[in-house]
Amino acid sequence: MSVLVTNIGELVTNDPEADDPLGVRTDAALVMDGDVIAWVGPATGAPAADERVDASGAAVIPGFVDSHSHLVFAGDRAEEFRARMAGESYAAGGIRTTVAATRAATDDELAATVQRLVAEMRSQGTTSVEIKSGYGLTVDDEARSLRIARGFTDDTTFLGAHVVPSEFADDPAGYVDLVTGPMLAAAAPHARWIDVFCETGAFDEDQARAVLAAGAAAGLKGRLHANQLGPGPGVALAAELGLAAVDHCTYLTDADVTALRDSGTVATLLPGVEFSTRQPFPDARRLLDAGVRVALASDCNPGSSYTSSLPFCIALAVREMGMTPAEAVHAATAGGAAALGRDDVGALVPGRRADLVLLDAPAHVHLAYRPGVPLVRQVWVGGEQVHPTSAGAAPRGC
Amino acid sequence: MSVLVTNIGELVTNDPEADDPLGVRTDAALVMDGDVIAWVGPATGAPAADERVDASGAAVIPGFVDSHSHLVFAGDRAEEFRARMAGESYAAGGIRTTVAATRAATDDELAATVQRLVAEMRSQGTTSVEIKSGYGLTVDDEARSLRIARGFTDDTTFLGAHVVPSEFADDPAGYVDLVTGPMLAAAAPHARWIDVFCETGAFDEDQARAVLAAGAAAGLKGRLHANQLGPGPGVALAAELGLAAVDHCTYLTDADVTALRDSGTVATLLPGVEFSTRQPFPDARRLLDAGVRVALASDCNPGSSYTSSLPFCIALAVREMGMTPAEAVHAATAGGAAALGRDDVGALVPGRRADLVLLDAPAHVHLAYRPGVPLVRQVWVGGEQVHPTSAGAAPRGC
Ligand SMILES: [Zn+2]
Ligand SMILES: [Zn+2]
Repeated sequence: MSVLVTNIGELVTNDPEADDPLGVRTDAALVMDGDVIAWVGPATGAPAADERVDASGAAVIPGFVDSHSHLVFAGDRAEEFRARMAGESYAAGGIRTTVAATRAATDDELAATVQRLVAEMRSQGTTSVEIKSGYGLTVDDEARSLRIARGFTDDTTFLGAHVVPSEFADDPAGYVDLVTGPMLAAAAPHARWIDVFCETGAFDEDQARAVLAAGAAAGLKGRLHANQLGPGPGVALAAELGLAAVDHCTYLTDADVTALRDSGTVATLLPGVEFSTRQPFPDARRLLDAGVRVALASDCNPGSSYTSSLPFCIALAVREMGMTPAEAVHAATAGGAAALGRDDVGALVPGRRADLVLLDAPAHVHLAYRPGVPLVRQVWVGGEQVHPTSAGAAPRGC
Repeated sequence: MSVLVTNIGELVTNDPEADDPLGVRTDAALVMDGDVIAWVGPATGAPAADERVDASGAAVIPGFVDSHSHLVFAGDRAEEFRARMAGESYAAGGIRTTVAATRAATDDELAATVQRLVAEMRSQGTTSVEIKSGYGLTVDDEARSLRIARGFTDDTTFLGAHVVPSEFADDPAGYVDLVTGPMLAAAAPHARWIDVFCETGAFDEDQARAVLAAGAAAGLKGRLHANQLGPGPGVALAAELGLAAVDHCTYLTDADVTALRDSGTVATLLPGVEFSTRQPFPDARRLLDAGVRVALASDCNPGSSYTSSLPFCIALAVREMGMTPAEAVHAATAGGAAALGRDDVGALVPGRRADLVLLDAPAHVHLAYRPGVPLVRQVWVGGEQVHPTSAGAAPRGC
């Protein structure tokens, strides 16, 4: 079936052939045929199609590609958040609290949480999402986390090296052996990527190298959490290994920035984290001015960033990180696609998957100009309308 | 007709008799009868009702009372926003741009914009809204702005003293004479309040006194925009006159804070403005610690704060202004009601108007813990469900 979307006031194509990064067309139309974009051009010259959607002058943008999330978990950490915001010390266990709750949950409970959050993301314009494990931290719990995540996306990431679980507190080397051995073997069939939290207090450079090398041997491509809480070796390591992306990038040396530019590794910025932990935001301007590719993602997780909203991340990126609205929208769409090594999504040009968002606004700028306002009117994934939709429809292919 | 809302995991009542400011009850139920709250108590002891809504453990809070908005306008200022965020100088006319567009618009166009924004507010949990004029700045355009606003709320505010329009640039005193004379006479039948932008570059203390005195003589109660861009006399004036509220309050002396505490004047904070203009946020903690009553409002307007989202303002208040989630929710509900001198809304206790919000979350903390996420599931105004609702239903009584 084909669908013509016409009277698009502003169409953000991210067309790599265009003169501007967003590839903006005005008074445009677009045709979806089956699950791909079949045609893009002026509204006056649009071909016929089986169905017709009138955008009435509103903007259409590519669906957001959220390249970093942690959706397989149980419980929440609202009280920890409240205490942190009040400046109170809080004795509870941080990530380990979520690990305990996740281990105790049933498969169905975990799947219901993923489904709820993926549906929430879709209603806010996200059409592709990466989902990590990392709250199981046993062979079985990591494998089932990834199996559940795989029900919602092919971009699943094995993050056994998220934190050393309490039962290995005295034997972190033993935990790395577990991660690179039996846990990886059980996880790999359900994962595309492997990730390590390379930070003081989590895993050091040597451990990160070991985990990434083992993952590569098992056919998993690498990505990293790095340089979130202070300077560290993770970003340089990601560049050296030519990883698709390194995420957080809040504390960077000039050498880190140069290395990212030279390697082409995408720096994925996660401003929901800095907002929700009251930390300084990463300097996107510095990265962009240096020629580094930048992505924006939610890092949706119950501890440090329980937002699922890329429009919110775009507004923060403009207010706090020196990005223009155009750069922020590009980073949340084409940037996310690059961070996942995807060339089938992130742009509205013929042949790409028909993942698009019709806004309740005349231009992409409104995503930053109207912060907090739900501006996503209609969402398609692979040519199929997924928002608004009847309640209970299972999100898949996101 | 009566409606029982039951299985409420957390019910925020704002009951003035309760020990905590939010008057939180757990495992609660509530009955609406006609347009008022008829009963509040434990879910196990709830009386029968004609209809039953199962909150399934989610939170219910009073509807937000947005005590400061400017919804009667035409056009937008997205390009001005983009330029400001990029640090570019921007020659266009600020408020005067909106004044020109508003004067050129038809009544129907203006009413359609108000309706769209009120509906948007409602979908985000706002159940009472104040709407100001201030983009007409002629006798006829101010009167029609208020007449249109009155179609949506009784809390209309005459803001002829918003800025001196360009045709009076050489004669500001003549403009004040117009505002306090024929413009007030035409506006007063459609307004409950009168407001002045008391700030360097707008109206000084003497002009503000003259406008407020003329308004009082015409039966309008006063409120002020003050101390937004720097220290000034407005907050002290509001306290001296015992106004219900003074809004912005970003730059305050210790004497200002003491005066607000002693007068009981509500300090209405508008963090959407500081977010969207990249200015320092007001210090809510200082005000609360001094015993000043605080409200949160959107200041929804196309120039300095084009957000309609009180959940977003709550998240900012917690991240940036030192408020706890409880204080922020209280300020956006009971605080807004106090700022409008309303004792019929802002709390969920028997006899109050049945204005309530069912969240997609187990607790009010989630409004700050999950920034940017649309967490408003269902909204009632005066016992009538207004969100979600069939498209095109006219919002009235908000
Ligand atoms: Zn993460
Ligand atoms: Zn205002």
